[in-house]
Amino acid sequence: MDFSTIRYEKDGHVLTITLHRPERMNAFTFTMADELIRAIDLADADGDIRAVILTGAGRAFCAGADLEKGQDAFRYETPEGQEPDWDEVRDAGGKVALRFFECRKPMIAAINGPAVGVGATITLPADIRLAAEGAKMGFVFCARGIAPDGASSWFLPKIVGLPQALEWVLTARVFPAEEALRAGLVRSLHAPGELLAAARRLADEIAANVAPVSATVARQMIWRMAGSPHPVHANAHETRAIYWRGRSEDVKEGVMSFLEKRPAKYSNRVPEDLPPGYPWWGEEPEFR
Amino acid sequence: MDFSTIRYEKDGHVLTITLHRPERMNAFTFTMADELIRAIDLADADGDIRAVILTGAGRAFCAGADLEKGQDAFRYETPEGQEPDWDEVRDAGGKVALRFFECRKPMIAAINGPAVGVGATITLPADIRLAAEGAKMGFVFCARGIAPDGASSWFLPKIVGLPQALEWVLTARVFPAEEALRAGLVRSLHAPGELLAAARRLADEIAANVAPVSATVARQMIWRMAGSPHPVHANAHETRAIYWRGRSEDVKEGVMSFLEKRPAKYSNRVPEDLPPGYPWWGEEPEFR
Amino acid sequence: MDFSTIRYEKDGHVLTITLHRPERMNAFTFTMADELIRAIDLADADGDIRAVILTGAGRAFCAGADLEKGQDAFRYETPEGQEPDWDEVRDAGGKVALRFFECRKPMIAAINGPAVGVGATITLPADIRLAAEGAKMGFVFCARGIAPDGASSWFLPKIVGLPQALEWVLTARVFPAEEALRAGLVRSLHAPGELLAAARRLADEIAANVAPVSATVARQMIWRMAGSPHPVHANAHETRAIYWRGRSEDVKEGVMSFLEKRPAKYSNRVPEDLPPGYPWWGEEPEFR
Repeated sequence: MDFSTIRYEKDGHVLTITLHRPERMNAFTFTMADELIRAIDLADADGDIRAVILTGAGRAFCAGADLEKGQDAFRYETPEGQEPDWDEVRDAGGKVALRFFECRKPMIAAINGPAVGVGATITLPADIRLAAEGAKMGFVFCARGIAPDGASSWFLPKIVGLPQALEWVLTARVFPAEEALRAGLVRSLHAPGELLAAARRLADEIAANVAPVSATVARQMIWRMAGSPHPVHANAHETRAIYWRGRSEDVKEGVMSFLEKRPAKYSNRVPEDLPPGYPWWGEEPEFR
Repeated sequence: MDFSTIRYEKDGHVLTITLHRPERMNAFTFTMADELIRAIDLADADGDIRAVILTGAGRAFCAGADLEKGQDAFRYETPEGQEPDWDEVRDAGGKVALRFFECRKPMIAAINGPAVGVGATITLPADIRLAAEGAKMGFVFCARGIAPDGASSWFLPKIVGLPQALEWVLTARVFPAEEALRAGLVRSLHAPGELLAAARRLADEIAANVAPVSATVARQMIWRMAGSPHPVHANAHETRAIYWRGRSEDVKEGVMSFLEKRPAKYSNRVPEDLPPGYPWWGEEPEFR
Repeated sequence: MDFSTIRYEKDGHVLTITLHRPERMNAFTFTMADELIRAIDLADADGDIRAVILTGAGRAFCAGADLEKGQDAFRYETPEGQEPDWDEVRDAGGKVALRFFECRKPMIAAINGPAVGVGATITLPADIRLAAEGAKMGFVFCARGIAPDGASSWFLPKIVGLPQALEWVLTARVFPAEEALRAGLVRSLHAPGELLAAARRLADEIAANVAPVSATVARQMIWRMAGSPHPVHANAHETRAIYWRGRSEDVKEGVMSFLEKRPAKYSNRVPEDLPPGYPWWGEEPEFR
């Protein structure tokens, strides 16, 4: 794959995407944003891939936005004196986060070292986060005079709760992995040399045990329903999912393998065998 | 009561509903779904009932959907080649969950043994969940090739948080009661022989200490506001509740018993004395 | 300041608001509600203030609604036999909570003693809550025959999760500070004599380390996004915040001080230097 800031490596059913600018602690750039989005496009279209691991090369996960431009690091070039085109200047961390949010494959973030600013926020739409002991994290925006990015003002409180999100963002503290663990930001800590293997075990567990189409449907429903006003929406989506899956080859295999106490072998793939009409929800809501 | 798959037993102010197909580990059927909904209709209409306990007969709580039909367990019979009527095939676990969501009486789930699939999801709209030591739980849908049911894609993340909900659903793991406790899925564990007594103590505490109309109004407001975009909605509902309750006999008794340091005796009943206009919110939102 | 039920004291960049009716355990009155709202109006307009501490005088934080009127404590006087004007009788605790929700400055509640009923609910829209050892709290509405106030049916589950909110409200229990800590209602406990100093350290940390405009924007975005259906909203707001902040003096100072490893000195103030168009969201949603 022709990527310059990330590595894209398939091994069996698992794709590993590695942020790869180790000489800059994998600092985030517009190119990296574009490549991450393109990598997910590829993963979504590849029926062999059942889980995605996101990690960083070298000793950092991602040190945040690249500050090479110094005081103009966050300055978008737009015609002076007029309102910018908001789609044109749209926060790149947020574009990546929204793409991860829409990803069809389960995502696991293996936070191998410091994950700060956008380096922390892009892990939030992953389904599972685990970290290396010693990794520090921080939502440091307010200490740089900037503002939360990566749609983290939506994601972070949904993951660690409002009080923890507010305290981390308002103090801009960099905190150790143990604090991330206690707050539920990561689900487990691992010796640095064992982190990737632990992420891989989770990816393999998903790839081996669950039907890929079921995982895609479930992942999207859970993330979508996080913003739904009423459980009747969930019932409507679930009804469609259960109806179509209920006549699939996978459910026959799933039920029979269970009754016969043997491992299942699912034949349906993503995206080839996604159910009719999926996704059943409409377009993104209007900006308000 | 003429129920064939559940037991409906009143004792004082407490109703106990027992899933009762012990020879099938209380596996869930369409008949059970109908009976559970009918039981809640009865409870809602019975002014004597101040709390509802849901439990299972024998060693299981509920083993999930009855798989007696084998590979066609999840197959709805509809005319081939055309889009089904989505109300007709609506997920039965979801219908039960939505009815529990609307229930006027506080609900306590006493999970006495394995609660798997729909056996786990129907406990989610209960206000309080407690479990027997040794009870296993699992949101195993994706390991059967099916999809989350019981409106759990809405309920589960609201109860245990998004990361835990995603990991349980995407791995389809069956997990021990201790993990359910750590994640906040259940509030306490008890020796199997003491579980029902513990549930009963909670039910009695509610029946003895709080005004039934207040509990109904509070329960509904909290569940409804879980999907509200703005606290002004809560303020509007609470204003109506406080206004009407503020002129009730119950509030006089509530305040005077507090000032006189004696137990209160509430006279208002549910549904007889629900306040004017309740519930103040509108119909269920349109499907999206 | 001409307040009769609260104290309003500025010290450096920190405002301390003290509920001050110690002879009544700081019980909540309509006058106190008006004064709290007015105090936040002043704080929002005062560019020197970077953080607000809310605490109580004497041994209580706030014992709840003043029950001096006994059985008519919660009775609004309105013309008999007709529907009240709902804006006229609007719950005063809710008005205070909504004003705190809109507050531009980070808010810290230092719960120095009993915080019960509205005394507990008005702390919920604070960003950070800490308590004195020995402080008791309770959402006791249902045990007085009344209903949740202070928009707590929206706030409380978002802070401690649905199951804990439901159990506290439906049992109306008064619980010790340790239980509040375990549930995440408060972030830490302190010896009574050290509580205010701990709150002050947090306020000073915010005042010293983060750009005030960034904090205001971040605080509002996080609270607002708690009710948003989709992360694209967050991306839209964050894009505007990052764009305007990216050309501010603060971001130059924030980046350069970081690169030079020195403390930052932010010059932008709130409200004077809030970005164009802020807040970007519309009016409060219609009542439903």
